Amino acid sequence: MKNQKLRIIPLGGLGEVGKNMMAYEYGDDILVVDTGIMFPDNDMLGVDYIIPDFQYLLDKAQRVRGIIVTHGHEDHTGAIHHVLEQINAPVYATPLTRGLLEIKIGRNGLSHTADLHTVQAGDRVQIGAFTVDFFHVCHSIPDAVGLGIETPAGLVVHSGDYKFDHTPVDNWPTDYARLAEFSERGVLALLADSTNSERAGWTPSERVIDAALRPVFETASGRIIIATFASLISRMQQVANAAQKYGRKLAFVGTSMTDNVKMARKLGYLDFPENLVVTVEQALGMKDKDIVLMCTGSQGEPSSILGRLSSGTNRQFDLKPGDTVVISSHPIPGNEETVYRTINRLFQRGANVIYEAIAPVHVSGHASQEEMKLLIHLTRPKFFIPIHGELRQLKQHAHLARQIGIPEENIAVVENGQVIAFEEGEMRLEERVPGRYVFVDGAGVGDVGPSVVREREALARDGIVLVSLALDKKTGCLQNEAEVITRGFIRVDENGELIANVKQRIAESVTRANGNLQADVEQMVKSYLYNETKRRPTVFVTVSRT
Amino acid sequence: MKNQKLRIIPLGGLGEVGKNMMAYEYGDDILVVDTGIMFPDNDMLGVDYIIPDFQYLLDKAQRVRGIIVTHGHEDHTGAIHHVLEQINAPVYATPLTRGLLEIKIGRNGLSHTADLHTVQAGDRVQIGAFTVDFFHVCHSIPDAVGLGIETPAGLVVHSGDYKFDHTPVDNWPTDYARLAEFSERGVLALLADSTNSERAGWTPSERVIDAALRPVFETASGRIIIATFASLISRMQQVANAAQKYGRKLAFVGTSMTDNVKMARKLGYLDFPENLVVTVEQALGMKDKDIVLMCTGSQGEPSSILGRLSSGTNRQFDLKPGDTVVISSHPIPGNEETVYRTINRLFQRGANVIYEAIAPVHVSGHASQEEMKLLIHLTRPKFFIPIHGELRQLKQHAHLARQIGIPEENIAVVENGQVIAFEEGEMRLEERVPGRYVFVDGAGVGDVGPSVVREREALARDGIVLVSLALDKKTGCLQNEAEVITRGFIRVDENGELIANVKQRIAESVTRANGNLQADVEQMVKSYLYNETKRRPTVFVTVSRT
Repeated sequence: MKNQKLRIIPLGGLGEVGKNMMAYEYGDDILVVDTGIMFPDNDMLGVDYIIPDFQYLLDKAQRVRGIIVTHGHEDHTGAIHHVLEQINAPVYATPLTRGLLEIKIGRNGLSHTADLHTVQAGDRVQIGAFTVDFFHVCHSIPDAVGLGIETPAGLVVHSGDYKFDHTPVDNWPTDYARLAEFSERGVLALLADSTNSERAGWTPSERVIDAALRPVFETASGRIIIATFASLISRMQQVANAAQKYGRKLAFVGTSMTDNVKMARKLGYLDFPENLVVTVEQALGMKDKDIVLMCTGSQGEPSSILGRLSSGTNRQFDLKPGDTVVISSHPIPGNEETVYRTINRLFQRGANVIYEAIAPVHVSGHASQEEMKLLIHLTRPKFFIPIHGELRQLKQHAHLARQIGIPEENIAVVENGQVIAFEEGEMRLEERVPGRYVFVDGAGVGDVGPSVVREREALARDGIVLVSLALDKKTGCLQNEAEVITRGFIRVDENGELIANVKQRIAESVTRANGNLQADVEQMVKSYLYNETKRRPTVFVTVSRT
Repeated sequence: MKNQKLRIIPLGGLGEVGKNMMAYEYGDDILVVDTGIMFPDNDMLGVDYIIPDFQYLLDKAQRVRGIIVTHGHEDHTGAIHHVLEQINAPVYATPLTRGLLEIKIGRNGLSHTADLHTVQAGDRVQIGAFTVDFFHVCHSIPDAVGLGIETPAGLVVHSGDYKFDHTPVDNWPTDYARLAEFSERGVLALLADSTNSERAGWTPSERVIDAALRPVFETASGRIIIATFASLISRMQQVANAAQKYGRKLAFVGTSMTDNVKMARKLGYLDFPENLVVTVEQALGMKDKDIVLMCTGSQGEPSSILGRLSSGTNRQFDLKPGDTVVISSHPIPGNEETVYRTINRLFQRGANVIYEAIAPVHVSGHASQEEMKLLIHLTRPKFFIPIHGELRQLKQHAHLARQIGIPEENIAVVENGQVIAFEEGEMRLEERVPGRYVFVDGAGVGDVGPSVVREREALARDGIVLVSLALDKKTGCLQNEAEVITRGFIRVDENGELIANVKQRIAESVTRANGNLQADVEQMVKSYLYNETKRRPTVFVTVSRT
């Protein structure tokens, strides 16, 4: 056994390494860590989200002994139902994470088949060949864990998302003792979160948000509306504390937020008096200065509560002058434009808007450079593998590790699909397993690929022009004027002349045509429109002969 | 005359106020300041850029006495040819700005009609009713100016883009004396740049870039490739200084950069020995450690030199391991994703990449909060109008002004099109002039509007499905199977069954059809595809009867 290999395989498809799904393989046993989604780039047109490419595991489904989900954020939980549909292995999670998973699994009709197990930070669980120590880490959601994975090839520490917050909202700091104990045992490899590796210093404590909320509550004369993620349970606790202190009632708006609050209160992760919370209807009946509303939409999603408030399309209530809106989150990369547009619109509607750029109403849940160095010193690993990040962030994390003494040859900066093997205390890169983006669009998983997205790009860039020709079967002459329909090409009402000219030229083409009329007309229309407009719409020609 | 009104009208269409185009109107005289473009948002599909909506000026073209361009950046110069085509007024600019304008005007075939006038910082020029004092400001391009506009209604100070750099690369600080002199004269209104109003403190001097380049030049063992904007003349000087100091030759890659360097050297804005610069061909023949290449593409534009290097499609040379790439710019909001993707790809190709997040290889050209306060104190205006920014930035700038004593009622936070009138020392908002986004797409100006962009969005979200039916004229039966073509909808090769089912259902529809066959089939295909895929492609049906 001792000589068997441990293989670690990040299975995220393209994109952020290890954040979405990681496989640990030893002998016949496979352990999966996290099943997250990625958010599409702005140029992945029409794509709802991206799930990990776990093709590699499909013919090994029987060997997957367990799936651990380290915490309840979408980029670690979001693909759970896609994975369970193919690989129905036992799922291990702490109570809050499990609660969030259950809501998701229930919505996707898998409640009866999913095999969920509750673990607590501090627990040790045997999963196939892996003895897993769950240890508590601070993050921007309670009940997050990192993993000490003891394998016959050695001990691997998997950080999960973490920060070293000395004053967390739930007063439960990261488990330093356990990290030191790992170090005593001897750590073969550390896999650590790289999200903030470009950020110097130490990430501020979640507690600074209390101080930032204080002036908001002290000066707001009207309603206070606070937008954040539905999974940011600790933020809800902080707002509840402030509401209580300043004598306001608190209402949660929207299904995802209300569902999560109900679950988190039941499990004891939210602690506030029953009479602090009112329904939205009750809140709207009270004086403006007596209420706080919490809602989703901090990423500027147009269909969220905040998105609808900013565009004036919310059903239950409207924004009004005197409202104070607090956006308590950081734009996910690629969302900056949408978030700023939402802020501008909220200002336009007369609200006062408080957001991260002007006040510390949000802090990161991820470790910064000094914390990263601390984690490495605490665990003293032989090998170091930066995970959870784009390549640039992995590179910076590797740079930090080198700075504090990990030799370059003991650091593996890899992309998803790259197999890392450990055998007899040595690390080697093996052949990469195939991986790609798996797009989820509507009900379809993977039926939209890059080629379809490229077609969408072409359609989106210059639109389409449809030409229908009806010819006399005998004479080959046009029976009527050609029909020309456009979408996304040009304002037709203001460009009648251009369209008339196209029709005129089509008529001439038909007269002159020899050979393939359809192809000739298509070519002619394309080049005529390019000459006139410098645009290349997608042109379709249909010909009927009657 | 004293009782006539001064009217100030920001003409940017929607979006950033006053950055793009500002009109000053007194009696029969109009003065225009800046003619910039805006970059489209990610969801303005297929739009190349956005120009100001200057509809308001079109029937007053004869009354425009002059157009001042404050400095040579695209967001202040880019629409000059669009404006001159409609309003051929004299253009005033400092030598470098004029040089950059001439290149642009030449490319658009307007060199013979444009009436350009060179001014120097310190000059006073009479333009209609306006006596304009041009004063030097520091910015991230040399030869930038602000304006003191003396009108019969009072003195207005227009800051342009500025920062208070005490150690600028060209050793030419902002003209504090002139600002103080304005204050002595008495300033009716200050219009000031709001770009960085969310940023605390003082913007670092351009000089810090020298210190950031030093370790790069000291440690790079291979080629150094530095990407920045083609208009960042002072950055070129800094790189040239470093190249000279560390014994490397410098080559400029790409037309826009070479054109601008040639012009700036001729005018004396770049100062380095002739033998420092080599051609790209010469550089590629030298040892890697002996060269620096400067190129464009710092925003990740796929067709730029850096974009092509990152995707391996550059013609003249490829990136190779050992190269050091420095990205010396800040992502324009909305470009973050593209810039980061480019950085990841450069790392993938083996380059070491240095960028703003990890080293101060770029600093902002805009004043931060403490500088903004200084400008207000230096000029002591009665009224304050924040310009150059999104609404959120104008609001923050107004907030700063209130903090240092400008009364709320003396501050106007307005959007483009809002007329601000001054009469007898009082400020009043008048009726707003209409304004919209004017999209430039290919050769077309304004022929793509929001409705066309919405059509493109629909096409891009779910693609299109084209159905062609050929019916027997007599029997009404299908002559052949329906033809179904899709673009951007689904992978057709892997979804043959779906398409076969659609055809089957179309055949059934034709048999059952009564009334409008075309509409019936369209409706049926739409709802069938939605049920099966939860997507809503745009469906077109053509019917021919033969």
